[in-house]
Amino acid sequence: MFLRNAWYVGAWGTEIGRQNLLRRTLLNEPVVFYRQEDGTPVALEDKCAHRHAPLSEGKLVGDFIQCPYHGLEYDASGACVRVPGQSNVPPDCRVRSYLAVERHQWIWVWMGDPALANSDDIEDFHWMDAPGWVAKGERMHLKGNYKLLIENLLELSHLAYIHATTLGTGAIAEEQMTFDRGDRDVSLTRWIMDSPVSNMFQKLGGFEPNEHVDRWQRVTWTPPAFVKLDVGAARANTGAIDGDRSQGFGYRNLNAITPETDGTSHYFWAQARDFRVDEDWISDLFVQSTHEAFSEDLWIIGLQQENMDTGTTHPRIDINHDGAAIQAIRMLEAMIEAENGAAGAVSGATRRNSQTPLQS
Amino acid sequence: MFLRNAWYVGAWGTEIGRQNLLRRTLLNEPVVFYRQEDGTPVALEDKCAHRHAPLSEGKLVGDFIQCPYHGLEYDASGACVRVPGQSNVPPDCRVRSYLAVERHQWIWVWMGDPALANSDDIEDFHWMDAPGWVAKGERMHLKGNYKLLIENLLELSHLAYIHATTLGTGAIAEEQMTFDRGDRDVSLTRWIMDSPVSNMFQKLGGFEPNEHVDRWQRVTWTPPAFVKLDVGAARANTGAIDGDRSQGFGYRNLNAITPETDGTSHYFWAQARDFRVDEDWISDLFVQSTHEAFSEDLWIIGLQQENMDTGTTHPRIDINHDGAAIQAIRMLEAMIEAENGAAGAVSGATRRNSQTPLQS
Amino acid sequence: MFLRNAWYVGAWGTEIGRQNLLRRTLLNEPVVFYRQEDGTPVALEDKCAHRHAPLSEGKLVGDFIQCPYHGLEYDASGACVRVPGQSNVPPDCRVRSYLAVERHQWIWVWMGDPALANSDDIEDFHWMDAPGWVAKGERMHLKGNYKLLIENLLELSHLAYIHATTLGTGAIAEEQMTFDRGDRDVSLTRWIMDSPVSNMFQKLGGFEPNEHVDRWQRVTWTPPAFVKLDVGAARANTGAIDGDRSQGFGYRNLNAITPETDGTSHYFWAQARDFRVDEDWISDLFVQSTHEAFSEDLWIIGLQQENMDTGTTHPRIDINHDGAAIQAIRMLEAMIEAENGAAGAVSGATRRNSQTPLQS
Repeated sequence: MFLRNAWYVGAWGTEIGRQNLLRRTLLNEPVVFYRQEDGTPVALEDKCAHRHAPLSEGKLVGDFIQCPYHGLEYDASGACVRVPGQSNVPPDCRVRSYLAVERHQWIWVWMGDPALANSDDIEDFHWMDAPGWVAKGERMHLKGNYKLLIENLLELSHLAYIHATTLGTGAIAEEQMTFDRGDRDVSLTRWIMDSPVSNMFQKLGGFEPNEHVDRWQRVTWTPPAFVKLDVGAARANTGAIDGDRSQGFGYRNLNAITPETDGTSHYFWAQARDFRVDEDWISDLFVQSTHEAFSEDLWIIGLQQENMDTGTTHPRIDINHDGAAIQAIRMLEAMIEAENGAAGAVSGATRRNSQTPLQS
Repeated sequence: MFLRNAWYVGAWGTEIGRQNLLRRTLLNEPVVFYRQEDGTPVALEDKCAHRHAPLSEGKLVGDFIQCPYHGLEYDASGACVRVPGQSNVPPDCRVRSYLAVERHQWIWVWMGDPALANSDDIEDFHWMDAPGWVAKGERMHLKGNYKLLIENLLELSHLAYIHATTLGTGAIAEEQMTFDRGDRDVSLTRWIMDSPVSNMFQKLGGFEPNEHVDRWQRVTWTPPAFVKLDVGAARANTGAIDGDRSQGFGYRNLNAITPETDGTSHYFWAQARDFRVDEDWISDLFVQSTHEAFSEDLWIIGLQQENMDTGTTHPRIDINHDGAAIQAIRMLEAMIEAENGAAGAVSGATRRNSQTPLQS
Repeated sequence: MFLRNAWYVGAWGTEIGRQNLLRRTLLNEPVVFYRQEDGTPVALEDKCAHRHAPLSEGKLVGDFIQCPYHGLEYDASGACVRVPGQSNVPPDCRVRSYLAVERHQWIWVWMGDPALANSDDIEDFHWMDAPGWVAKGERMHLKGNYKLLIENLLELSHLAYIHATTLGTGAIAEEQMTFDRGDRDVSLTRWIMDSPVSNMFQKLGGFEPNEHVDRWQRVTWTPPAFVKLDVGAARANTGAIDGDRSQGFGYRNLNAITPETDGTSHYFWAQARDFRVDEDWISDLFVQSTHEAFSEDLWIIGLQQENMDTGTTHPRIDINHDGAAIQAIRMLEAMIEAENGAAGAVSGATRRNSQTPLQS
């Protein structure tokens, strides 16, 4: 069961257009994306009301989408506007239209009750296109439930293991972290003080090889499945922890996860920065190295999901590092419960989290 | 649920013989086909009574089929006639035998109660081997329920869309059609008067390029899943619509669909003609172009079936062009209901058709 | 339902070590195998207690196995001994440890109640490593339930059909066999007297081409799924049937089957001999020819399993040759019933065997 009354990222703006209609399954439902002639994005149920053929195999006729099978045409509201061979259109002939808004490079869709939708509620990802910023990323595919990826992003000790040769250093897993639960977010903050700079940070921040830095990561989750990282480093002991970042640099890792099915997910992410924005090699390096690291995450989460579905699976045991993830999943599940008006309908595996004392 | 007391096409006569025993699943049941020494076709349950190995992996010993695993032999009636290592045969040792009749180039099988079978009821496909006629075709495989293909054949507006570059012209979808429901058949007739001749028809009928013709299509469905097309064209306004085909030519497209499983089907078809029967290039052209066009149908029906099985699927909306298909499916389902003595056991999706007013 | 309180072969000793941790599913449960620094084999549930990642993707840290995802470490008892980022370990943090014993070249595991395990009960396969003997084999994978392979090994008439060009001769299926049911075993004995020697036996035993031999096969099943064959031949009429094997030679074919899932199995086997033990070509010939013959078995059993799962499957009909297999499966199912304290919980298909009169 998904939170339906929420804005999700359905596609990159660059993925949709007037050619190659994009079919994408979101929250178990097939959706077709296209643009009207004025560029406005459209998201419709990808299933003709007549005989259920996928509209995404058809073509655009002006602002209408034409079914590939029998030629029925639909407008952006999902109403059928033409049936070949007859002058009238059957009154119930329509496909579901999903509200679609283009913002921050992404196409946002509302899969729930349209009466509850307000585009002001679209999650703030202004770093994606704010003046002075440059952002670049991609969509990846996860063979796992989206909650597993939320947990992954809210738990940093795995950097030392899964990302041992990419992002991690041995020290990371032993660092203590603090997290805060707000009304509608959970944040996790980690400072790694006075430690050797990584190769990538050295290149980006202009540090000397083996120079020591104070490194920060602030991870903020907001529902249903957005995780934003404020990441950076400054020369060791120059006051970054107290707010002075002048001796360092930072960037944002921006993540939006959208359930595809119960067991698979879309992973939209970008790296955004406000330094050296004209240097494409930095963008390329960011995308390439992030892709490499996230591939490691998707690999282990895919195995995790498959293993959970094999043989006997005991309830999870929580550890200190899970604190932030537990809070986020608990908050998300409460929202899903509230949306469905069914206080008892939580899955056992994740509900257990709420009974586990947190120690960080 | 399938109509079981009916003759279905199980194979082309050329597909079965004394070598390479043919295994084919029909109505969810695995069947093995072979010929006795005198050429008589045999269709048996492809599952040894002993330990359920597929007989089709065995070999023929005279008129008997020998199990590949332990050597049990069965005769054409399905009775086990030999068990290695013992002189007697266990009394219940038999596999089901399906009545099999070779007629009109095809092997017909009866999957229901043998007591109700009468080979006189085999559908008339005499064009397949009548004197003065030549017929050629093939078997194709559909990843979809057989009813979707019946509907496809009884609905002609899709020619303008799915077959836009092969069979269709833009005009087709707007043509009005008439259909008749008989006691045990549904026919759909279309006349396209005074319209430009297609490339293929020009070649076949000896028309001039861009000449106008009166074109006819008469589609007749009979249960469970036979669809015969009488197709042709004559010089425009020479009286073909009133019965004078002397200024034109025609041929038959003959289709027999057999359910393989609930979600897959066998599609047997041939093109038959009584003109220029010695010119092989016409047979080849027919088979090649029909294969190309039918591949387009199987492609979209496969997507249709897959889409119906994905996410939320609303009840169908019918349009005018569906008239004939609705009548045929309604008649078929009534026969299935009657066979099963369960008036209420119809699937929701297709039952809806009977509540839709027809407008053509 | 499997017999759980039993020793099964989980792996060849050569398959496990300190690198390339071996994941293997046994009785539907994923298990990871490794060796401690002193060489002792370890078998643990391959599912971290924390977030269910597969430990087999991690690495060894001394005698501990470290989870690839978050770095938790487990000792050979399955107890978590380290959680990164915290000094204490949650009290319930452990994975299941399976008793593992290395014996006769194989790693034996106990998948049931550890309190009932006694390594003295490990099946006797001393030919695998006894002085004066040499044994060589492999693991094969069966796409079928393990009982189908037990039945295969206890039924010899199939040699004439499945192995017609490898092991069988036409005469075999008609030979009579005798079987004995002991308290905890079933044995099947066949003597083929005064018959032409096979190519392989001629080479191995030093017989003349076309010489006649007395050939024996004694097949012994012990639960849950061990089958040992004592196979050999001697010059015809030199008293082998009365115990004098001096004019012949013999070897052991040793089989241990372990359920992987309900529908798939691991097949461990070896050929052991006490003659010409230094001649590697004989070992190679044994392994190669046995591999070829067993591939034929796994092929037909895979088809058998698939066919059983397709369409209508009637209850089995038994034949005389099934006597030994019926006794073994009956005994095995009684043990499973007893273990589960549920006398009625037998599968229909095999229970039928116990109602079939045996005639050999």
